[in-house]
Amino acid sequence: MGGSVKRLAVLGSTGSIGQQTLDVVRSFPDRFQVIGLAGGRNTELLVRQIEEFQPRLVSVSDGRLLGTGYKTSSLEELASHPEIDLVVIAISGMAGLSPTMAAIRAGKDIALATKEVLVAAGEIVTAEAKRCHAQILPIDSEPSAIWQCLHGEDRKIAKLILTASGGPFRHLSSHELKAVTPQQALEHPTWRMGKKVTIDSATLMNKGFEVIETHWLFDVPLEDIEIVIHPQSIVHSMVEFVDGSVKAQLSIPDMRLPIQYTLFYPERPLSKLPRLDFAKIDSLTFEVPNLEKFPCLKLALEAGRKGGTYPAVLSAADEVAVELFLEGHIGFLDIARVVEEALEQHQGISNPSLEEVLAADAWARERVRR
Amino acid sequence: MGGSVKRLAVLGSTGSIGQQTLDVVRSFPDRFQVIGLAGGRNTELLVRQIEEFQPRLVSVSDGRLLGTGYKTSSLEELASHPEIDLVVIAISGMAGLSPTMAAIRAGKDIALATKEVLVAAGEIVTAEAKRCHAQILPIDSEPSAIWQCLHGEDRKIAKLILTASGGPFRHLSSHELKAVTPQQALEHPTWRMGKKVTIDSATLMNKGFEVIETHWLFDVPLEDIEIVIHPQSIVHSMVEFVDGSVKAQLSIPDMRLPIQYTLFYPERPLSKLPRLDFAKIDSLTFEVPNLEKFPCLKLALEAGRKGGTYPAVLSAADEVAVELFLEGHIGFLDIARVVEEALEQHQGISNPSLEEVLAADAWARERVRR
Repeated sequence: MGGSVKRLAVLGSTGSIGQQTLDVVRSFPDRFQVIGLAGGRNTELLVRQIEEFQPRLVSVSDGRLLGTGYKTSSLEELASHPEIDLVVIAISGMAGLSPTMAAIRAGKDIALATKEVLVAAGEIVTAEAKRCHAQILPIDSEPSAIWQCLHGEDRKIAKLILTASGGPFRHLSSHELKAVTPQQALEHPTWRMGKKVTIDSATLMNKGFEVIETHWLFDVPLEDIEIVIHPQSIVHSMVEFVDGSVKAQLSIPDMRLPIQYTLFYPERPLSKLPRLDFAKIDSLTFEVPNLEKFPCLKLALEAGRKGGTYPAVLSAADEVAVELFLEGHIGFLDIARVVEEALEQHQGISNPSLEEVLAADAWARERVRR
Repeated sequence: MGGSVKRLAVLGSTGSIGQQTLDVVRSFPDRFQVIGLAGGRNTELLVRQIEEFQPRLVSVSDGRLLGTGYKTSSLEELASHPEIDLVVIAISGMAGLSPTMAAIRAGKDIALATKEVLVAAGEIVTAEAKRCHAQILPIDSEPSAIWQCLHGEDRKIAKLILTASGGPFRHLSSHELKAVTPQQALEHPTWRMGKKVTIDSATLMNKGFEVIETHWLFDVPLEDIEIVIHPQSIVHSMVEFVDGSVKAQLSIPDMRLPIQYTLFYPERPLSKLPRLDFAKIDSLTFEVPNLEKFPCLKLALEAGRKGGTYPAVLSAADEVAVELFLEGHIGFLDIARVVEEALEQHQGISNPSLEEVLAADAWARERVRR
């Protein structure tokens, strides 16, 4: 294989993206060294990962859960440790922000799966990354597709076209959507993902987040980012250039592919991941998203346009609303209602500081919980 | 607009690609200067083009046809003239070979639409281009798509995937194919092209030529080039990289887009060409080509694999066979039969010289005419 060894920290290693990141690392033992692992509540899995990858640094939400014999660090210590080249941020939700900032300030490159970080604090995070010469590399399949399509091109972009599977409820009526259960919402038709992002995919909030994330990642105006429903999840996103030519990135839906692209960037490794077979693809279809039936998408686009602290409120309100839905306290359509109320009641601040973003986030969480 | 002025020669200016090339030039009057025009039998159109673009050099198959007042040059003089930066080769068939070689030997970059040049003499032409530091830039939509997908990437290619519309007779039985008339074969479902290439598209010979052309253009083994039928002609071709990621280039089917890409390369101009609208795309479908129903494709792939003078015989025999079909002398399915017979009777030469290629070409023409 050859090539140098990249030293990784994987934050959120027991989550879906974290596990798939370690799958990729496992396939290329000569190319990566896991220096740090940070897990959440699934300590049983974290212990197994520690035994397999022998990281020097471990972080866990409650250190006592690991038992004795393990010395733990904070997420921020782990993310900024001098021996790490690339920090994978795969922690669900806003908890990813603080270690992201720590890593950036230490000049580390970031492989970012947690889109809430850029949704809530995109301007601050990207400005800090620029200042500290840290690259923010996307892990998510759609921004990864955009990134791949832009690779080697002048930035002469007419628009970015984000594809969306449309989630499991694309064909339901508003009436049927009302009765959707958490179990139904957790069954995503094409992607294997964590709970939060799977619900966000079902409401299309996830796609709204991606529009904001993509805007910050590639410095493209929000109005030049289009969403197209593509239920087969084969075309992961596209770029239309000023000359009228469109580039698309395709693969079978498997998160290990964009993860692998990011871990190896700028190289493409010879990989054993399953391949697209066009003889077996029936057809690729495209349709316009229905903003009336999926109001979360509309709310996200509005919050993105308003900017300031509104996207932080959007993200925080959604995070709590999804929890409430998963716990059975509110219905599926209530997620949008609850987020909308929070946005309506929020007094936005333009060009907020990090503290103001965090305050807006805390305000929204509190507001939705009440 | 800015940017420098590129000085062009357009060989085959009255043909379909030639006319569309001049359409592009017409849209960007500040960026191109037409130094040379070469037309065939349509002198009426050529005269209009001369009046509009005021080229310094003109070439025409029979100079007398232009009338007095025009001084004409040979194709080779035109292609190698010192004031020309880029030579567009859009002459139908093997007549493109000699001016291509002249341009290459003069160190000119070539915008190549005539695929027969690389089919018949790919090894010689690409070796000479390398020696003379001349770039061969494709104009055809499929190799242009491949070229765009490879742009900026390391050449870590798993395979190239050439799409084919499948032509107008995709759904006909072998029995129905037998009765196809030239009129029917000239009605291509998606592309506006010249007669020869339209018939070659209907037999799929064109796709076989493209496999060989693509092999030479991008130095990719024939066995790593796959063909997929894609009737909508939206995805113009794709590259699968070693990591499993696929890049595709898409647009509405309009030859002006790849022509424009080639004329402006490496820049993408802000263009008014019509755009893809994914809200209006019903579905993109893919299927495996039927080599039994379309034997020309099979013959082309076999000739490509055999190499040497076989592809020259393939190309020459096809050129005459298509003429005979258009003139009503032979049936649609006879095109393949006639080409197959020529290939069977040919005594192939490995690593042929240009003279040996031309001799094989002449032999095949003579053989098929008899």
